[in-house]
Amino acid sequence: MKRIGRYTIAFEDEPSIIGYAAAAGKKEAEGPLAGRFDKVFYDAYLGQPTFEAAECVLQQEAVIRAVERAGIKTEDVDFIFAGDLLNQCISSSFSSKEFNIPYLGQYGACSTFAQGIILAAMAVSGGAARTAACATSSHFCTAERQYRLPLEYGGQRTPTSQWTVTGAGCCVLSRGKSAPRVTRATVGRITDLDISDPNNMGAAMAPAAAGSIIDFFEDTGTRPRDYDLILTGDLGVVGSDCLYELLVAEGYDIRSRHNDCGLMIYDREAQDVHAGGSGAGCCAAVFCSTILPDMINGKYHNILFIPTGALMSPVSSAQGKSIPAVAHLVNITQ
Amino acid sequence: MKRIGRYTIAFEDEPSIIGYAAAAGKKEAEGPLAGRFDKVFYDAYLGQPTFEAAECVLQQEAVIRAVERAGIKTEDVDFIFAGDLLNQCISSSFSSKEFNIPYLGQYGACSTFAQGIILAAMAVSGGAARTAACATSSHFCTAERQYRLPLEYGGQRTPTSQWTVTGAGCCVLSRGKSAPRVTRATVGRITDLDISDPNNMGAAMAPAAAGSIIDFFEDTGTRPRDYDLILTGDLGVVGSDCLYELLVAEGYDIRSRHNDCGLMIYDREAQDVHAGGSGAGCCAAVFCSTILPDMINGKYHNILFIPTGALMSPVSSAQGKSIPAVAHLVNITQ
Repeated sequence: MKRIGRYTIAFEDEPSIIGYAAAAGKKEAEGPLAGRFDKVFYDAYLGQPTFEAAECVLQQEAVIRAVERAGIKTEDVDFIFAGDLLNQCISSSFSSKEFNIPYLGQYGACSTFAQGIILAAMAVSGGAARTAACATSSHFCTAERQYRLPLEYGGQRTPTSQWTVTGAGCCVLSRGKSAPRVTRATVGRITDLDISDPNNMGAAMAPAAAGSIIDFFEDTGTRPRDYDLILTGDLGVVGSDCLYELLVAEGYDIRSRHNDCGLMIYDREAQDVHAGGSGAGCCAAVFCSTILPDMINGKYHNILFIPTGALMSPVSSAQGKSIPAVAHLVNITQ
Repeated sequence: MKRIGRYTIAFEDEPSIIGYAAAAGKKEAEGPLAGRFDKVFYDAYLGQPTFEAAECVLQQEAVIRAVERAGIKTEDVDFIFAGDLLNQCISSSFSSKEFNIPYLGQYGACSTFAQGIILAAMAVSGGAARTAACATSSHFCTAERQYRLPLEYGGQRTPTSQWTVTGAGCCVLSRGKSAPRVTRATVGRITDLDISDPNNMGAAMAPAAAGSIIDFFEDTGTRPRDYDLILTGDLGVVGSDCLYELLVAEGYDIRSRHNDCGLMIYDREAQDVHAGGSGAGCCAAVFCSTILPDMINGKYHNILFIPTGALMSPVSSAQGKSIPAVAHLVNITQ
């Protein structure tokens, strides 16, 4: 690996994504990505006694299928970088304890999947691992009751709010195979423009996405037109508009290349999800169900994937704090 | 980097710990490590409006002093791997947002500091970073009220319970300097022997520590006598006894070499901390205040440092789940 410019890493031997899989819930399977997921669970409990246990099964399903698609066994995976939105990341620890894979828990809220890809790529590229996996998940019922209100309460949602995706994704990285390759990455810095409304996370996260995108363009000397797709995590409709504005002010117009995982996963109008989807499983499920297969099928050749995370907690919000956000950028080439 | 055996990494160019610092609270400064901390805060609030904000300041203090001791500036740090015990790791995100350093949030409960060292070493060793920092913190008042009971309630503590350390530590890693070097590491697998008492985390974490120690000995062909010190994270007195028993059964007697950060930081009898200290800041504060200086002063030459983490949450415990645990081993040589 070497560094380019101030913030960007180039993976000279370009670790490949040799396996990937996505699992999702009923609402996700009824949206625009219907038919794309490797496994759909129609029961929100996934046959488990609690929603938290259900989310573990969701993440496990993605890991098992990704490892299988890679043509290896779980015992061949040297590290798993896993994360989720729950307090103490229990979906990941209870999921991963079944696999006997050396475990490194990650927390970057909805940006965690990018963080996992970057660290897995670093581990593989530097020789610390022959294969490394990254996995994230989220579940509407675990997240809503932890972050917002009891599900039974049926609280009214604001127009800027996003819908937590019930979904999980996993990628398995290794060296020297012909598959989508992680070529460059920019690890984000925390940005905080003093937005404190936890029902408007798109706006809180947009400056972080803009920052990482600008860092990457400056470090690499590239422009939006050099990429087939610039895919943010889950800014939703409000955050995406903020992002365009912030980038145009810096001379970058990404509109013709941009999409957002939070906008891709649901039909906003028909599925009543307000500003779009969100959650650590949102970008993971979209990326592993749709984007990677589309790269392999030749639809995309060179993309930027920028999951975004809002790093607050219900406690920090109750204490009147603003929402720090982060976004990590991964450049993937097929 | 290269892999040795099944689970161990060797850092061939041996990233050095060029800066380190520890901050602690009043109780910690009154214990056996009095006079060792770089900064002591006698007010539990650290002049902040909330305990959560206080913990941020504690972590910031460790980072600022470690970077200063390394003889660099925060803008020279390429990544910070930071973590803590709070929901959504807010101590780390609110601390790190002041630094403008690319941020990768880590969650491994009380094992997080080892995870940060390993990932910082990987980043530096592989060329992804010139310098990388890792930092963790914990605070008695933030942790107790989140994990157990309101502080004002004054609940009775069980004899096996541990006292959450108010403390933080930070290490800064870089290549090619003459300082304590990270030579090898073993990333732990999650272990769960079905212990479900959150007031006996030492016992829950001991099998994870034993597992990583055995993996390391087997992978490297070394024995306890090859090391000056085998330092676990915070098993406390109960967990340390479990560890001895588990290792003796496998033919390894570490007793003459072993110490535990949770036992070093307090005088158990005089300070009424029951089984010892714990918390993500415990091993970080002990390691950065005492162990690293003792290595530099020639007391230790070759040590194993094995922070342990209990990966449950109050929700998983309330749902009757057992406590998954993990321990990561770092071999440090001076």
